Amino acid sequence: MPLPAEFHEIAKRVNNWGRWGADDEIGTLNLITDAVVRDAAATVRTGQRIPLALALQQDGVQSGLIPGRVNPLHAMVQINQELFGPGTVATSDDVVTLGLQAATHWDALTHASHSGKIYNGRPAATVTAHGGAQFSSIAAPPHLVSRGVLLDVARARGVDRLPGDHAVTPEDLDAAEEFGGIRVRAGDIVLVRTGQIQAYLAGDKHAYAYPSPGLSIRTPEWFHARDVAAVANDTLTFEIFPAEIEDLWLGVHALDLVEMGMLQGQNWNLEGLSTACAEARRYGFLLSAMPEPFVGATGTPVAPVAVL
Amino acid sequence: MPLPAEFHEIAKRVNNWGRWGADDEIGTLNLITDAVVRDAAATVRTGQRIPLALALQQDGVQSGLIPGRVNPLHAMVQINQELFGPGTVATSDDVVTLGLQAATHWDALTHASHSGKIYNGRPAATVTAHGGAQFSSIAAPPHLVSRGVLLDVARARGVDRLPGDHAVTPEDLDAAEEFGGIRVRAGDIVLVRTGQIQAYLAGDKHAYAYPSPGLSIRTPEWFHARDVAAVANDTLTFEIFPAEIEDLWLGVHALDLVEMGMLQGQNWNLEGLSTACAEARRYGFLLSAMPEPFVGATGTPVAPVAVL
Amino acid sequence: MPLPAEFHEIAKRVNNWGRWGADDEIGTLNLITDAVVRDAAATVRTGQRIPLALALQQDGVQSGLIPGRVNPLHAMVQINQELFGPGTVATSDDVVTLGLQAATHWDALTHASHSGKIYNGRPAATVTAHGGAQFSSIAAPPHLVSRGVLLDVARARGVDRLPGDHAVTPEDLDAAEEFGGIRVRAGDIVLVRTGQIQAYLAGDKHAYAYPSPGLSIRTPEWFHARDVAAVANDTLTFEIFPAEIEDLWLGVHALDLVEMGMLQGQNWNLEGLSTACAEARRYGFLLSAMPEPFVGATGTPVAPVAVL
Amino acid sequence: MPLPAEFHEIAKRVNNWGRWGADDEIGTLNLITDAVVRDAAATVRTGQRIPLALALQQDGVQSGLIPGRVNPLHAMVQINQELFGPGTVATSDDVVTLGLQAATHWDALTHASHSGKIYNGRPAATVTAHGGAQFSSIAAPPHLVSRGVLLDVARARGVDRLPGDHAVTPEDLDAAEEFGGIRVRAGDIVLVRTGQIQAYLAGDKHAYAYPSPGLSIRTPEWFHARDVAAVANDTLTFEIFPAEIEDLWLGVHALDLVEMGMLQGQNWNLEGLSTACAEARRYGFLLSAMPEPFVGATGTPVAPVAVL
Repeated sequence: MPLPAEFHEIAKRVNNWGRWGADDEIGTLNLITDAVVRDAAATVRTGQRIPLALALQQDGVQSGLIPGRVNPLHAMVQINQELFGPGTVATSDDVVTLGLQAATHWDALTHASHSGKIYNGRPAATVTAHGGAQFSSIAAPPHLVSRGVLLDVARARGVDRLPGDHAVTPEDLDAAEEFGGIRVRAGDIVLVRTGQIQAYLAGDKHAYAYPSPGLSIRTPEWFHARDVAAVANDTLTFEIFPAEIEDLWLGVHALDLVEMGMLQGQNWNLEGLSTACAEARRYGFLLSAMPEPFVGATGTPVAPVAVL
Repeated sequence: MPLPAEFHEIAKRVNNWGRWGADDEIGTLNLITDAVVRDAAATVRTGQRIPLALALQQDGVQSGLIPGRVNPLHAMVQINQELFGPGTVATSDDVVTLGLQAATHWDALTHASHSGKIYNGRPAATVTAHGGAQFSSIAAPPHLVSRGVLLDVARARGVDRLPGDHAVTPEDLDAAEEFGGIRVRAGDIVLVRTGQIQAYLAGDKHAYAYPSPGLSIRTPEWFHARDVAAVANDTLTFEIFPAEIEDLWLGVHALDLVEMGMLQGQNWNLEGLSTACAEARRYGFLLSAMPEPFVGATGTPVAPVAVL
Repeated sequence: MPLPAEFHEIAKRVNNWGRWGADDEIGTLNLITDAVVRDAAATVRTGQRIPLALALQQDGVQSGLIPGRVNPLHAMVQINQELFGPGTVATSDDVVTLGLQAATHWDALTHASHSGKIYNGRPAATVTAHGGAQFSSIAAPPHLVSRGVLLDVARARGVDRLPGDHAVTPEDLDAAEEFGGIRVRAGDIVLVRTGQIQAYLAGDKHAYAYPSPGLSIRTPEWFHARDVAAVANDTLTFEIFPAEIEDLWLGVHALDLVEMGMLQGQNWNLEGLSTACAEARRYGFLLSAMPEPFVGATGTPVAPVAVL
Repeated sequence: MPLPAEFHEIAKRVNNWGRWGADDEIGTLNLITDAVVRDAAATVRTGQRIPLALALQQDGVQSGLIPGRVNPLHAMVQINQELFGPGTVATSDDVVTLGLQAATHWDALTHASHSGKIYNGRPAATVTAHGGAQFSSIAAPPHLVSRGVLLDVARARGVDRLPGDHAVTPEDLDAAEEFGGIRVRAGDIVLVRTGQIQAYLAGDKHAYAYPSPGLSIRTPEWFHARDVAAVANDTLTFEIFPAEIEDLWLGVHALDLVEMGMLQGQNWNLEGLSTACAEARRYGFLLSAMPEPFVGATGTPVAPVAVL
């Protein structure tokens, strides 16, 4: 079944293939210039830091619905081991196995494809089991530091948490900007808060997963118009789930990752940041959200931090 | 065989147990205050960002010498999978298994113990296979953002790379400060460059591993005097290896992690930073080096970034 | 809370420490002599083979109740990869991560300990994160081939599946012997069928896990009297769960593994074997159930096969 | 570069596609009938058992040459953990990550493909990252028990170990049959001993890997003529490596697995069996070599046992 015409029309409008050259692998991250980062650092006023990652643990957000996407399994290979003989200094070592998209994470641009293509028009077949993504893997971005902007849609609408059938629209984003007294600029990393992660934090993984508020198929055009560098939110699916349009599952993924070449983040815990921004009455900050450079990977756990 | 008297004498002088209360789990990270971070952000002038992590790949720095500390194994669980039917948007997912101390990483305070104790005098037996480290795991630090200071010992001494038997001394640190025109302050994260990682980058893991320049047993007192928050360098072993003092293996680990409660980082790639600092003639910058919050873990991969 | 007196009384009666020497690591597997195996081979009449392992898959019997015991995670590292160039012969390779006790498995003798001891009186502390079990790991048994005897307790009682609160007693074992027209001998591997695994096969992991019929605390004496080499059944917990005696959890594990030194198997699918034995009216057969020799491991997946 | 004409000629002669129906997934394992297994059991005379698996350990046969094929990584998740409270019975649990082709293993028929096809003419594209091999995975064979025959080529030629450039030919197999006083029959599992594994057992993984004696491209016709069910040997590569014919790498794999549908085993330790057979002057025995039924997998560790 082909993707609906509506998808292709939006795709045409947000497409960035070739914009940064045929060899480009990082898409809208090109918009994070030195000047953007310098200005981002200048937004810091108090030095308060808000970490945005969920704890990495076996009882994580995954409930088994997505095949192969496993919560972190932590295991010890050394415990207070006196490697140099009895009475010597001892060390502990551990190993972990996890799905790279399991917890608070970035999707690489190659996390999605459609019609046989990935970002910049390359063949989807350049992602293989032998080495993973040859282009646009999560090791491609040299860094992810920029100005962060919290668009607190839930708070702007006066609710703790958006209902499960709420598609976050461009109008919601506009309203959240106004609420926050901030305007999103080129190179910003935008964090969209729905409050949905409260379900997980309260212990209900299933309610967290589905149904879930999330970004509308209409938002990619908004992000494209603003030249946003990357977008993250506090849901499992990023976009509203189930989908807004019949027969168009993961349409936002396809528009953001494939057409625009814009990184997406999921399962970000924005609760503490929401409180801090509301208290400080400032919704712009320095954000560091460095991907772990797993070669060939289509995603990575990330431990983002906002500095206010 | 008991630890030598010399160790215990230094230990007494650098011990921080109780300094931040009996319940403290993060040691010298307490020294990173809001003010320190605010000032760190103020050091940013150009917005240039230098990432400091090695690529995470199977051909990583581990050569099999350290049991269980395995290089990252990346594998695909979905490749362009049309989960919602033929012709729909496709996704790729992947999983990874790795030793938490395998690549560019932070040691948690619990990575080392001696005489049955971990940092703050807790029993080493609080690290178990069931849940890992109950206290002072790598999930304990709320963040790791501060001013970073590069002490480029190799460049200060006019060499590309320190010889394998060079123990970096307090005098070396003083000289590197002077060379860089900077003075290390409370709450700083200090990066000590030896150049040793050039061996790995040139493809020789064994030469990288051993023998290796590294920090002298005399440096913990220097870091303690300056109230440094954390220290990282560009070697596999952090401290000089083989050890300076007979029968005192991993003495620096024990002093830094157990006695002082100061995090250590290893396998950091400081080559690009060395060049950038030399060109900018500035050795202080904003550093973000957020640990992935693996619950119970005694270490974590980290993707640090310096913003100049 | 100390183990109840009743436990210690039984323990005294079934204890085999020292019986095969102070250096012994395999306990009752010593009872499988060449003669026993020769006679086991002689029981084969038709050559029919019945495999007894559950499929190894992510949707396996584990439901997350037991920390760290994860279902198999299968992932590809090569898919039809033409390693020697385009057009050459291609290969596919894969990796797996799994809990060694997750699926159809053998417990090693070291899977359980009590009062600080493992089988043969060795310290439980000989199991460490560094190398696992130094003694009596699952790599210790040279083989697990013998006569298998199905004690089909469910069928003997005329039910498909024992109720969840049914503790299989020595009297049940006697009755199943009589029903099957067979007498358990020294060196036999006994398979005790409850029918409980039907719950898992029908898709209900939770009903499978708990409450579960299983072996009574009184059965170790029966197995000891008969000099059984090993026992397996078709439940998650092996013994009745919840336990028969207050404050005595895993008492059968402690008696079988620690005191007697007798291997236990769990999650064996005995449904097909039950049918085959009933049709053939024979309950003795050749059984091969080789452990994968994971060095230091306290358990292993196993793919047993009965040859009738 | 297309496969050479010589390959295609042999392929035509050994091809079994359709022989057991269009739906068949197990190829020559169909030749193991009840009668074959009954006769195999009847070969047992002494009950002596010889295990054929290498120890599963991190210091296994893999040296890093084959991407993603990692030696077993064993780690503890519970060590003497008193799950039900202090003083209760304790348990130890562990997890493992390993390449399914890393140690003593069976290749599934889907381990190899050529010209876009797997066994029985199915598309190679039926092997995907999402679930692995849809057909002919290692979970397809219901069992692997049959008569085993040791063809001790090294001993028949009067050497401990064949030289690295020795391609085992049909003539070698004939001579080994004669030496052993045995004739290979339909349904047999043939074990071909080269002695090469002595290099690994002596600690030299590199000498073990390459150059290696192994089966000649001419042997598939011999196995086909005899209607052998499966073949295993004591090398890393199974076939001679480097290859006999220029531009024909892994030709034996393609003929055995893809064309004939005959399972291959590698890294089997046949040293003890060689001694036992020589002493007993019998080269036929009961062999149990059950694959672990990993769903979708293209290989599996196996712990084979010969019963003499």
